[in-house]
Amino acid sequence: MFYPKSHAVIGASAEARKFGGRFLQTLINFGYRGVIYPVNPQESEVLGLKAYPSVADIPGPVDFASIAIPARAVPGVLQECVTKGVKAALILTAGFRELGEEGQRLEKEIADTAARGVRVVGPNCFGVYCPGGGMTILPGENLPRESGPVGFISQSGGYAVRVPRRADGLGIRFSKAVSYGNGCDINECDLVEYMHQDPETGIITAYLEGVKDGPRFFSLLREVCQTKPVIIWKGGLTQGGARAARSHTASLGGQEAVWEALFRQTGAIRVNNLEELLDTTLAFLHLGPLAGQRICSIGGGGGIGVAAADAWERAGLSVPVFSPELEKKLLGMIPAVGASARNPVDVGGPFPAPPMFRAVMETVCTDADVDILVVDEIEMAMAMPRGGQMFRPPEAMQEMVRVPLDIKEKFGKPVVVVMPVEAVSTAWLESEGERRKIRDLFLQNHIPVYLTKERAAKALANLTSYYQRRGMLISG
Amino acid sequence: MFYPKSHAVIGASAEARKFGGRFLQTLINFGYRGVIYPVNPQESEVLGLKAYPSVADIPGPVDFASIAIPARAVPGVLQECVTKGVKAALILTAGFRELGEEGQRLEKEIADTAARGVRVVGPNCFGVYCPGGGMTILPGENLPRESGPVGFISQSGGYAVRVPRRADGLGIRFSKAVSYGNGCDINECDLVEYMHQDPETGIITAYLEGVKDGPRFFSLLREVCQTKPVIIWKGGLTQGGARAARSHTASLGGQEAVWEALFRQTGAIRVNNLEELLDTTLAFLHLGPLAGQRICSIGGGGGIGVAAADAWERAGLSVPVFSPELEKKLLGMIPAVGASARNPVDVGGPFPAPPMFRAVMETVCTDADVDILVVDEIEMAMAMPRGGQMFRPPEAMQEMVRVPLDIKEKFGKPVVVVMPVEAVSTAWLESEGERRKIRDLFLQNHIPVYLTKERAAKALANLTSYYQRRGMLISG
Repeated sequence: MFYPKSHAVIGASAEARKFGGRFLQTLINFGYRGVIYPVNPQESEVLGLKAYPSVADIPGPVDFASIAIPARAVPGVLQECVTKGVKAALILTAGFRELGEEGQRLEKEIADTAARGVRVVGPNCFGVYCPGGGMTILPGENLPRESGPVGFISQSGGYAVRVPRRADGLGIRFSKAVSYGNGCDINECDLVEYMHQDPETGIITAYLEGVKDGPRFFSLLREVCQTKPVIIWKGGLTQGGARAARSHTASLGGQEAVWEALFRQTGAIRVNNLEELLDTTLAFLHLGPLAGQRICSIGGGGGIGVAAADAWERAGLSVPVFSPELEKKLLGMIPAVGASARNPVDVGGPFPAPPMFRAVMETVCTDADVDILVVDEIEMAMAMPRGGQMFRPPEAMQEMVRVPLDIKEKFGKPVVVVMPVEAVSTAWLESEGERRKIRDLFLQNHIPVYLTKERAAKALANLTSYYQRRGMLISG
Repeated sequence: MFYPKSHAVIGASAEARKFGGRFLQTLINFGYRGVIYPVNPQESEVLGLKAYPSVADIPGPVDFASIAIPARAVPGVLQECVTKGVKAALILTAGFRELGEEGQRLEKEIADTAARGVRVVGPNCFGVYCPGGGMTILPGENLPRESGPVGFISQSGGYAVRVPRRADGLGIRFSKAVSYGNGCDINECDLVEYMHQDPETGIITAYLEGVKDGPRFFSLLREVCQTKPVIIWKGGLTQGGARAARSHTASLGGQEAVWEALFRQTGAIRVNNLEELLDTTLAFLHLGPLAGQRICSIGGGGGIGVAAADAWERAGLSVPVFSPELEKKLLGMIPAVGASARNPVDVGGPFPAPPMFRAVMETVCTDADVDILVVDEIEMAMAMPRGGQMFRPPEAMQEMVRVPLDIKEKFGKPVVVVMPVEAVSTAWLESEGERRKIRDLFLQNHIPVYLTKERAAKALANLTSYYQRRGMLISG
């Protein structure tokens, strides 16, 4: 794999308020492993690195250039990059076609120059986060240094950093996240094609505002979706959203009906916001191929079971009825009153005794004909301090947390946990810390954790529909 | 207002594992101000209080009785309560009509006894949380002692405690929250009617699985919704959910289409889960009567604006186009590139300088013809520690937080803030603490705060539709 060994930062300065200064500092802090050449005609040194008046003055080869200078100077500098033999350039500068005619003209010049021998990401973008290559996006100096199997393509710079940042806390790691802005040269199709071939990328995700070449995008998705899931958040599908997208990246959005048809006909997965994108990614990451949509959920209350069944069925998942034999077995385990042996199972309250909880989980795994097991609003530790005490003593807590982990290991069945943030007050921050620790332990063991039933349901429906369709395509 | 001055706990014991024991302890810990009489034929003292063998043995009058004894003994004990002159009783015990024929017979007996002179809440419920009367629900010893304007009626015991507990951290306070379970005497209609007349209750919320008397419920809602909003989460609208509701409270759910018609024809507000119920309550609590649905949102990025417009319009709200004069004014304030003076406004990034942010907010308030102002994903403090530092120094942070507060005060226009939890990792718990503190400050000043645009959109759509309809009813 090609990683740039030398990187010219054109428009580098010591001022963190300027894009070029901020980007250079970010690159240094993130730990770029190649040589960095600041380019600035007014400085001989920037942030402790020798600076050069122009890219032409740099001795030796330059693999990559980042450009953060006023828009009207960009075409000339890009031509210098071509002359120097720079292989790829990133144009952070905004103020091109999203700003009207003059900007359109400048952007056309850039595209023409690119065609003469340099690949361009941007303009009007935040760049490329690629931990394997020691590269990061403009405000991404704190993003994880480890790689992972998720690729992210984003027309928005803001979301190009918000998605991996939010994902970080959920243990989702990226092969590459690319903010490509106006996409005057490298566009969404090129990036999907690249990630399709990229062995580091297993799941492709995207935030898109518009697509340059509809027919190419369509046939590409049809092909890619047969081997890798492509999860797309399409921004600007409403009237107001389309208007905003024109101001943002000068994208022509396309109508909802057209996009709906695209999703239906290609098998790409539609999500409608950042949360759905991450929730769905989490399901693909941890549960893998899964075509069945039959859910058994085990919850800590009667109302919880009612709400759960509503959530699963509204998302298109099914809640099969248990056999009389299974119901009978479960009736022997759960409390005689205030509980339910039907699906969704109600273990009688949010604090079941760990051995009973384990017996119910094991029995359901052995006897029920279901595809996914959901542990729903059962308290693993505490929801909040209770008179200064946790609800469960630490040993019992550990015993509870072990149950889903052991079940997953023993039966190899997909297990999903729904753990809402109950303790939303500032005073109970510590218990939110406990919740997060338990969440992390589940995530490390391939048990996806969701904040609400509805979010779990949407993610699981997205996952199972994709594999159902793919199975049909493969077998058909 | 009538508060019970004496309260018999029938089935009281020192064992916290038993319902009666737990309930007595909860009542004591919560700080019930009247006299408590434990009733237990085997004990002379329970938790330091003199115990009585039966309710008949208690000297002096008993206003209220809680019953937590095996189901088959309940009818007899309830009859003793009638004889004693107890005005109202709470039956915590489960195992009645939700468990089949024998349970149905027992429940019928209770209803018949109730008709002879005692009002009954339950059976199969968690009771009444009424901070003004020093009463609380079974697992509700940590619920706030202060009252507020929200009433909650719940067929689920679990949600009867989860809703006020979660609401606590959002500053939502309750007049009463009632878990009424099988509702053999006092049912959802009685409770809605009561809360309609209750001067302490301004907003009525409910989790329902079924309704005993459809026509009465319908005409009641039509009347109540003309003066107080009624927010209803109806559980069991799917096939699986309806099946679960039959196991839970033996409720016959009713079809989705019937309920849809009820919402449409009565003006009651439909919500589909706990989060929507609280989000919508927050909007009613802080924004009050508001019939206009025109949103202006001010966000920290181009993609954020696109996503925001999509969220508002999908929920049925509108995103009006600004006048050319207003756009021109805003263009003089925001950065020349990488920002947008259109609605939704993009101030160029999530960390605008406070004076610029203030100028934009003021200008929009003065010149735009909008009903609600949304501050969308603009960082008030930090999203997370950044190299050990906050993004903003504390003074700048305070300056930022002042802006929405001052604007709300100066222009009297509804302001809403969308503040996602960006720092979802365990390592960044402290920054979640910062977020919550800022959230609390906004909530204290009647600025509702939402975790996502979609949740804000749904809540605002619910609020404005209600008042639009009510305005029509009043003026028509």
